[in-house]
Amino acid sequence: MRKVAVAGIGLIKVKEYWDRPIGSLFQEAAYKAMKDAGTNKIDSLYVANMSGALMQDQLNMGTVMADVIAKPGLPATRIEAGSASGGVAFHEAVKAVASGYSDCVMVGGVEKMSDVLPEVVTSSLVMSEEQEYTAYTGVTKAGLSAMLHRLYLDIYASPEEVGMMAVKSHDHAVGCRHAQYPFKMSIERAMASPMEADPIRMMECSGIGDGAAALILVPAEDSGVEVAGSAVATDYCSLAQRDDPLTFNAVKTAADRAYKMAGVKPSDINLAEVHDDYTINGVLSLEALGLVEQGKAAKLVAEQGTARDGKIPTNTMGGLKARGNPLGATGIYQVAEVALQLRGAAGDQQIEGAEVGLAQNMGGIASICAVNVLRRLA
Amino acid sequence: MRKVAVAGIGLIKVKEYWDRPIGSLFQEAAYKAMKDAGTNKIDSLYVANMSGALMQDQLNMGTVMADVIAKPGLPATRIEAGSASGGVAFHEAVKAVASGYSDCVMVGGVEKMSDVLPEVVTSSLVMSEEQEYTAYTGVTKAGLSAMLHRLYLDIYASPEEVGMMAVKSHDHAVGCRHAQYPFKMSIERAMASPMEADPIRMMECSGIGDGAAALILVPAEDSGVEVAGSAVATDYCSLAQRDDPLTFNAVKTAADRAYKMAGVKPSDINLAEVHDDYTINGVLSLEALGLVEQGKAAKLVAEQGTARDGKIPTNTMGGLKARGNPLGATGIYQVAEVALQLRGAAGDQQIEGAEVGLAQNMGGIASICAVNVLRRLA
Repeated sequence: MRKVAVAGIGLIKVKEYWDRPIGSLFQEAAYKAMKDAGTNKIDSLYVANMSGALMQDQLNMGTVMADVIAKPGLPATRIEAGSASGGVAFHEAVKAVASGYSDCVMVGGVEKMSDVLPEVVTSSLVMSEEQEYTAYTGVTKAGLSAMLHRLYLDIYASPEEVGMMAVKSHDHAVGCRHAQYPFKMSIERAMASPMEADPIRMMECSGIGDGAAALILVPAEDSGVEVAGSAVATDYCSLAQRDDPLTFNAVKTAADRAYKMAGVKPSDINLAEVHDDYTINGVLSLEALGLVEQGKAAKLVAEQGTARDGKIPTNTMGGLKARGNPLGATGIYQVAEVALQLRGAAGDQQIEGAEVGLAQNMGGIASICAVNVLRRLA
Repeated sequence: MRKVAVAGIGLIKVKEYWDRPIGSLFQEAAYKAMKDAGTNKIDSLYVANMSGALMQDQLNMGTVMADVIAKPGLPATRIEAGSASGGVAFHEAVKAVASGYSDCVMVGGVEKMSDVLPEVVTSSLVMSEEQEYTAYTGVTKAGLSAMLHRLYLDIYASPEEVGMMAVKSHDHAVGCRHAQYPFKMSIERAMASPMEADPIRMMECSGIGDGAAALILVPAEDSGVEVAGSAVATDYCSLAQRDDPLTFNAVKTAADRAYKMAGVKPSDINLAEVHDDYTINGVLSLEALGLVEQGKAAKLVAEQGTARDGKIPTNTMGGLKARGNPLGATGIYQVAEVALQLRGAAGDQQIEGAEVGLAQNMGGIASICAVNVLRRLA
């Protein structure tokens, strides 16, 4: 199996683009990634997109984006795994290079959510749950996350401790040029914001935004940033079928596989980009990744243990909460941010001396998870 | 790069399943494939599905199907490339084994179209075209195909000659247990059927049906059926941008790559499963695959050259027209049928002595195409 490296990174700022079509967002990220890699000779394309069929009436997004970047002819594959689309697409793109099928792959994610009705976003989010057993009830993704949040509060932590996950993400986004909300937010503001789904408050939820991110993957040489481990795993779709709903088995399984492949332990990880679409999901992800003991993540966050100078720097550019969560693009932003850190190119957000980092991206309520571990070479 | 073999095949009959949910269809095909392979130890899952978000309000179909087949934990990836979803998913599943990431992959396709309104099917089909430039006009997929059909009739052939593509497919479906329409249809009946989109008549179009098909892929050994070549290519989405709309460049490019990888020429192909969603698209595919000279495919079909004992046996189990075209599942049915032929397990449909066969699966109007070449080993 060939080793794979990240050779190019292209990001656009997550925000509301009322004046541009979805293809234009992808195009900008793609051109930036090719410029960064110093090549436009890509030989295949992976496109992560979650809700194009519902938000843009657009299927076949792989082909459409190959056309948009003026590369008709390219093999193009659209990957969808709910909000894990980006992480899973990255995993597939890694296989394309590892197998020898491709020598220079672009994997990009794109989503445009601003210009649809909010109820389209809400219904699209819950379509990652099984229709036959869960979604048909009318429950929302926030509602499902709220059940976990309530249970966690009953056993392990206070609302403020969990809420600090969002405060920390905003702290980290300050100065980040591609972040949607690059400003500080206090725990008082979070706790005073309206209840979204009891006990989740509005300022604990990631927002609606448009974004695109692209990466170029090539066979690894002696320097740069390599993909040390890459894995995807699933879990029962329904929370009711899981032994312990506070244990994200898909995250645990994917992380174990990725760590093993990379030859690392959780304690070797210098920074983590975790899936904090709601504060509770970020907290439970830190635990399932083995970075913090079960039940202790919210407390660690509240004690600044996930700050940039903490025990395990987490969501160093704002995470889903403050960098933004453009669904299908999110997982690509995460990997891109880890790669920037390992290159030492993270600017104000830099974690000094970072050598190994991970990106964890989930779909549904952790019914699917991709974990990608990156390492700095030489 | 590891060689890959098809170790298991599972098909269900294409028809209208009013009494079963989509998961149940996938489950049946998946269990049949595992039984056929003699193993249930699959280590990853690829799911091809085109329109779940529109027809079942279901995203994250990879995870949902992993759960449905009682394999939560599996890595699962949903691939969508319009009606090429199956062929592209097969291509990605091949990479999973070739790269060494997986030793036993299931790739399945599923689509359930019967129980939605016909206009949902029509609008879903045209969502493979670019919304910004083509789909917004209100044109349908049949309408776009009709433009090609008209042009072909103006230059190369008669309506009856093109219509024979459908007659031949029905001839081949007789006796095929998984075919939706296993009965003969005369050219007179085709030509007397209502006009769908002038000059395409209703009996030249594939119908609406539900289906699921699954394959198991493993590293190749000395016997069985190997994946000799596998490639995907795209083209300009818009017909207006193509130099010659009657030349399917995506098909040509994918075929050239797959032939090269397999070390074969078009004349080495013993049977072909081509994408005849409309008769004209099947005709143009035969030409773009290099199996027939440009402008001569309809005549060859009319002269029985694509019959089971003809020069190039085509759509040996009925093709999209008569086996059925359950969108995301179609490409998997095609590969499965080629594999059955090469195993010598095609029953009444058997092409004697077949050693090399191909499956060609398109999305949009040939804006994306997967070509998979299979070969019988020892």
